[in-house]
Amino acid sequence: MTFDLSRDHAKKLDEADELNSYREKFFQPDAALVYMDGNSLGRLPLSTLERVERVVREEWGEKLIRSWGINWLNSPHEVGEKIARLVGAEQGQVVISDSTSVNLFKLVMAALDLRPERKKIVTDVLNFPSDLYILQGCNRIYGGKHSIHRIPSADDIRVDTQAVMDAIDANTALVTLSHVVFKSGYMYDAQAITAHAHKMGALVLWDLSHAVGAVPLELDRWGADFAVGCTYKYLNGGPGSPAFLYVRHALQGEALSPIWGWFGERAPFNFELDYIPAEGISRFICGTPPILSLLAMEKGVDMLLEAGMENIRKKSIHLTSYLIDLYDALLTPLGFTLGTPREAEQRGSHISIRHSDGYRINRALIEEMNVIPDFREPDNIRLGLSPLYTSFQDVWEAVDRIRQVMTEKRYLHYPTIRLTVT
Amino acid sequence: MTFDLSRDHAKKLDEADELNSYREKFFQPDAALVYMDGNSLGRLPLSTLERVERVVREEWGEKLIRSWGINWLNSPHEVGEKIARLVGAEQGQVVISDSTSVNLFKLVMAALDLRPERKKIVTDVLNFPSDLYILQGCNRIYGGKHSIHRIPSADDIRVDTQAVMDAIDANTALVTLSHVVFKSGYMYDAQAITAHAHKMGALVLWDLSHAVGAVPLELDRWGADFAVGCTYKYLNGGPGSPAFLYVRHALQGEALSPIWGWFGERAPFNFELDYIPAEGISRFICGTPPILSLLAMEKGVDMLLEAGMENIRKKSIHLTSYLIDLYDALLTPLGFTLGTPREAEQRGSHISIRHSDGYRINRALIEEMNVIPDFREPDNIRLGLSPLYTSFQDVWEAVDRIRQVMTEKRYLHYPTIRLTVT
Repeated sequence: MTFDLSRDHAKKLDEADELNSYREKFFQPDAALVYMDGNSLGRLPLSTLERVERVVREEWGEKLIRSWGINWLNSPHEVGEKIARLVGAEQGQVVISDSTSVNLFKLVMAALDLRPERKKIVTDVLNFPSDLYILQGCNRIYGGKHSIHRIPSADDIRVDTQAVMDAIDANTALVTLSHVVFKSGYMYDAQAITAHAHKMGALVLWDLSHAVGAVPLELDRWGADFAVGCTYKYLNGGPGSPAFLYVRHALQGEALSPIWGWFGERAPFNFELDYIPAEGISRFICGTPPILSLLAMEKGVDMLLEAGMENIRKKSIHLTSYLIDLYDALLTPLGFTLGTPREAEQRGSHISIRHSDGYRINRALIEEMNVIPDFREPDNIRLGLSPLYTSFQDVWEAVDRIRQVMTEKRYLHYPTIRLTVT
Repeated sequence: MTFDLSRDHAKKLDEADELNSYREKFFQPDAALVYMDGNSLGRLPLSTLERVERVVREEWGEKLIRSWGINWLNSPHEVGEKIARLVGAEQGQVVISDSTSVNLFKLVMAALDLRPERKKIVTDVLNFPSDLYILQGCNRIYGGKHSIHRIPSADDIRVDTQAVMDAIDANTALVTLSHVVFKSGYMYDAQAITAHAHKMGALVLWDLSHAVGAVPLELDRWGADFAVGCTYKYLNGGPGSPAFLYVRHALQGEALSPIWGWFGERAPFNFELDYIPAEGISRFICGTPPILSLLAMEKGVDMLLEAGMENIRKKSIHLTSYLIDLYDALLTPLGFTLGTPREAEQRGSHISIRHSDGYRINRALIEEMNVIPDFREPDNIRLGLSPLYTSFQDVWEAVDRIRQVMTEKRYLHYPTIRLTVT
């Protein structure tokens, strides 16, 4: 295979890219910055700058409390319904509320409550640690009656689907996994696992945090029971923007949030003293939503809907494949290994490259080369490719600057031990 | 008593008001608007407009993910410590996290967990319904083993302190009340109740949502165990800005949040698979905080600290007393009754006036008179006085326009039935 390694080739790929014009719709004060961390915090859409200004000045400052009646009260649903279109959900099943962790807590508690006689939870070692923590906390509340099975991974990249299926038995209450794994970008066959879990009578909860906005999703078609997801990664919702949750229609009558918040009550402004849950997805909302952070996400979601998830996926595969090609040619000889599946259908939109000096290389990239990837213990540099604003030239520059860091040994003067933030 | 009812007198009171200059620090595009709902949503500080612009453009847009390390990661603590000074708490006991409802859930669960053998929760009928809902939800998780005692109110204004104390017995796990009651503005003697509860071995959780920023608070001196509070009322934090929580030092080792979120983990960026709670107040943080909504509250809190809670309380008492005087002279003859204690030491910073046509009167005020109070079922018009920006002329105008609505019978063409929002 001949592969064109030139910068000029990257430029040509950008020129041929149908989504290329979206790049200009993001705030980019530093044109030389190669931002490869859109999977941790997406860039700021220019339209969001205006939107936030309007929310603060007009909606809060001018209309004050009246804005609740005008447009705030329904915003968890309105923005939720937009996200529903990104995750393949019919109306009335998705809502914005709280953080991903709190939503996961609500839905795990609801799920375990629906399967009281079953005592097993199936997950994997590649799931977000934060998701595993929530499971452990829920299990403590249930008196430790559940066993939490974390299916292992042989290569720290993927988990064998058959091993997951084999672990699901008649005692399994809940199967919960990240659809796209945060470390490696590995993507599960969600439909197959959901179908098998249902055959065994278990409920299924998908964490879509690293998938939504990066790959097309089909919650309804999969038959998923529950899902949660983050909005500040590929949705470009802004730092800590509130999360979404999905509960399929058929479960909304019997499933109950453990946190009986007033926004989930049937008639919160009647101020009655006894809680009656709202009908439908509303019952999973909790307290007053953080409006600035909630409305800041809307424009980013609009852009994804406009661009279309099929187009985004197409570009994402093109970007990640291009990066793997450059990696093979230029980085393999420098001691890196690939931490992401080579099969496009098995990965999301980031590429992990691993190196025993990964932490130091990552720091050199940030501090000297104006490249921002991110680093995950112990050796994992993640390169996030966000199709609406990541260009092929970005990919070329990232690989070229990594190559420079290695050949010029720029990473050697950084400490090898990472200080943990606590 | 002779009492000067003239508008000119109100003007003189403003001129003599030492906090009068703060009014200009708030965004007020409509000078004729009389805003009496700062106890539901505080006004927008001008400095917050700039702050949000900076957070969005510079911190998110320009610095991107790097802002977590620069200033976002510690912001729940930094802003929390500022609020600590408003609630009389030494360092290390207050943090910003989630909504008031979620925080209440975390602390109620933690409290019941610390008193497993006790089966009674004491609260009152004047507490926020949202707080009662959370208690009911927690009780369901505990298998319904607790009885929730809601101490009644004879007049819908106050609850007899002795009745609360009498209800606290050796079987009581938790006493939880709103320090200032949302309906009537009635303020409990928190120190007396806390001391008595402790004598009986019960834990105490105060909801400070209608108190913080309106009255001086002394959580440490009271010996309170737990507290939660809202930041979008008298703190002027913006719509749905995240809430704060307080756990006293002595309990931080044994108390545990039920929601094991990664921001409450000992070393979240080590990505270990088993949860170990952080030391201290951090363990009560949960998921990633909504940064825009969190940082939008900081400038409002700074202003309260600068003005000083003693000065704010002094003006608040002056404002509420002045309003009661005008009420006595002008509104009593029009069929209103007072829904707030006349004793200044028993009330916070809003005044409730009650009328069987309250809902219609409230609508006429908003739609025809450019006055914004709020209405609470069944007959309660609340007039919130926020000392940093409410002027004596505002109070005069509010009463005068209410008088006009009544004498001109402007409320009669509004429907008597309120549509509930669900």
